[in-house]
Amino acid sequence: MSTVVTVTPNPALDVTYQVDALRVGRSHRVHRVIERAGGKGVNVARVVRALDGNAVVVAPFGGVTGSALETSLRADGFDVRPVPVAAQTRRTVTVVADGEATALNEPGRALAPEEWVAVENAVADAAVAGDVAVISGSTPRDAPRDLHARLIERARLAGAATVVDTSGPSLLAAAEAAPALVKPNADELREATGEPDVTTAAHILLDRGARSVVVSLGADGLAGFDGTAAWRVAPVPGLAGNPTGAGDAVVAALALSMSDGTPWPDALVRATACGAAAVPADAAGKIDLGAYARFLPTLTAERFE
Amino acid sequence: MSTVVTVTPNPALDVTYQVDALRVGRSHRVHRVIERAGGKGVNVARVVRALDGNAVVVAPFGGVTGSALETSLRADGFDVRPVPVAAQTRRTVTVVADGEATALNEPGRALAPEEWVAVENAVADAAVAGDVAVISGSTPRDAPRDLHARLIERARLAGAATVVDTSGPSLLAAAEAAPALVKPNADELREATGEPDVTTAAHILLDRGARSVVVSLGADGLAGFDGTAAWRVAPVPGLAGNPTGAGDAVVAALALSMSDGTPWPDALVRATACGAAAVPADAAGKIDLGAYARFLPTLTAERFE
Repeated sequence: MSTVVTVTPNPALDVTYQVDALRVGRSHRVHRVIERAGGKGVNVARVVRALDGNAVVVAPFGGVTGSALETSLRADGFDVRPVPVAAQTRRTVTVVADGEATALNEPGRALAPEEWVAVENAVADAAVAGDVAVISGSTPRDAPRDLHARLIERARLAGAATVVDTSGPSLLAAAEAAPALVKPNADELREATGEPDVTTAAHILLDRGARSVVVSLGADGLAGFDGTAAWRVAPVPGLAGNPTGAGDAVVAALALSMSDGTPWPDALVRATACGAAAVPADAAGKIDLGAYARFLPTLTAERFE
Repeated sequence: MSTVVTVTPNPALDVTYQVDALRVGRSHRVHRVIERAGGKGVNVARVVRALDGNAVVVAPFGGVTGSALETSLRADGFDVRPVPVAAQTRRTVTVVADGEATALNEPGRALAPEEWVAVENAVADAAVAGDVAVISGSTPRDAPRDLHARLIERARLAGAATVVDTSGPSLLAAAEAAPALVKPNADELREATGEPDVTTAAHILLDRGARSVVVSLGADGLAGFDGTAAWRVAPVPGLAGNPTGAGDAVVAALALSMSDGTPWPDALVRATACGAAAVPADAAGKIDLGAYARFLPTLTAERFE
């Protein structure tokens, strides 16, 4: 079985604080502290494993938080390919009170140019022919402008297809390096291209070089474009829960479909079901497997272009 | 010169996040992250050093945050007597936005009984005759009820006087072990004794066994009781800034006065000036030495009982 090699340029130690009520300007006693290895690529790897796929985690780790992340991922049984870096890995703190989440995201600290080369080498070492490399999330400040292009090229030389889930200028730059798939959400797609219409915006990325584009539309489901056709999957109705991590679950399902040769319309259905199954789960990187199995037969991909 | 041995049963890695505006339910990009070794005893040690005194830091340290604390204190040149414990040392996160501070305080994780004995042994090892032991701050959950009494007794056996700055049942229990001084603020004193009048409440602690009581009254200055007389120092007028850490600066000055034999009214004046000099400083454990020197000659202790 081929492997999904996840690359997380900007991992984080995700810390969740539960408090009674969050009031600005006050002091709060934290009732519960939950620490978890995070970053979008790490979440993708968790979902790949939940779906019985092989996942490798490539990420730069630095300082005490980097050590904590690496230790935690190994304890969870992941095949981790750590790239040691000088800068301390960032934390995110999410304060949960009265069912509402307030997030405080530390910026990723800058890596040295040779540390980025080490990340590229780690991807090249991890990927073999037939694998799928997934590059997920933001980049720390001062990351090379051509980071995504270089990672895509190294994966290609190793014989692996590439999926990119990022935003802003990185999304445009990644598309130009001709990855097999880019997966923005609708807001990210509009913001990066400056084009309000999702179909037109997706074609901008195809024209730049992306072989296919999947756009998560939130409450409107999913749209997929492969240059010759466009497909749409309507959402699972009546979902309630936490949509954080649903995009990562979509990416995980798409990467697995790519690695096992699932046809495009079926891949989009799997991705929609998997993203929906992340909503009832209580943390990013988790999916409700029972819900996934229930959702799958209810969904169809319809061609609209 | 004698030494101030600070004991911090519940130390913390204090993390400060600067954000543009804190809005409940939203995501925030953190612009600046400041990490600092914290806990009230650590703050006391910082002020003792700023006033050219000798300070030793005794505290339990565990996990990656404990390592970070120990490393940071050693880098600052402190004589640290770490007590290794299994539980990870807690963090506090303070979010600063629009000049307003919102604090999220992790609870201290429970220590094993033998780890508390190791803390007591560390105090006994660090203190010599003529030293002053300062026990500051809260205790982690499930700390022994007689922790303060045991620490006071071990310091006494080593020939050291003891200052206690704590609250709640710990304050009452500590007073019964006859420390040289307890230093609650007015709210802590009222809450622990159930007595609204500060003078009456201070006498409750003296009757329980404390040899002297100093009460910080915030905007009303400082009151000191030694069983035979009561003194009051009016506050420095027109102070603006951050009162966090002012109580620790008061304790540091009182401990230094005790160690160098400064007479009681002068000690109260030094303590008031030192507490006031913490207000313009930008972090707990810092004082403005210029302000301290300016405030000192303007203050007097007046006997009122």
